[in-house]
Amino acid sequence: MAVNIPILKLYNCLLVSIQWELDDQTALQFQENLLQKIHETGAVGVVIDLTSVDMIDSFIAKVLGDVINMSKLMGARVVLTGIQPAVAITLVELGIHLQDVRTALDLEKGLETLQRELEE
Amino acid sequence: MAVNIPILKLYNCLLVSIQWELDDQTALQFQENLLQKIHETGAVGVVIDLTSVDMIDSFIAKVLGDVINMSKLMGARVVLTGIQPAVAITLVELGIHLQDVRTALDLEKGLETLQRELEE
Repeated sequence: MAVNIPILKLYNCLLVSIQWELDDQTALQFQENLLQKIHETGAVGVVIDLTSVDMIDSFIAKVLGDVINMSKLMGARVVLTGIQPAVAITLVELGIHLQDVRTALDLEKGLETLQRELEE
Repeated sequence: MAVNIPILKLYNCLLVSIQWELDDQTALQFQENLLQKIHETGAVGVVIDLTSVDMIDSFIAKVLGDVINMSKLMGARVVLTGIQPAVAITLVELGIHLQDVRTALDLEKGLETLQRELEE
């Protein structure tokens, strides 16, 4: 069963908190849903919170990198929050550097970072 | 498989968006998780967004009524948002009147309602 990851709309931003291990199908569904939601709501920012994700595999890392680039193409800035050590290691080792992506410690700080970015 | 519904902490509030039909096990797990999270974070407010819930059965309605009362006992105010007609009908027909519960149209308005409540 592919479970949809809830995407919350708050003002002009979308909030996503990934609170369980993603399987491939769920990750792809999430990618599609997020882009669809950006299109529907005209959101200009997205915060993806990974606090509860202990580790990711190469496929999920790629999907995550992709969805960030796709969101940017659609005009939404992405902030990743709560990246744990093992996740950071996987991302860098796989060559997914997420160079232009802002990161922050938690959801609050992620939203603040996003608001600052958008005001610039 | 019981899926945990993500609970987001934002400042002193918790945000929950229920975006699929709840089965009994998931609802009970949600109840436990929410109360645990209130305890852990010391949150003073909870917004439960039901926008994507088309209908609920009597068991889910009862769990929802219970979790609201339990949250109140723990010192957190609850705002329900996005209640759809069929859900409102079910709640009232089952005698779950949620008398002291604030409701609002969507997540933004729910958070505003909560902030106003907390300032009083």
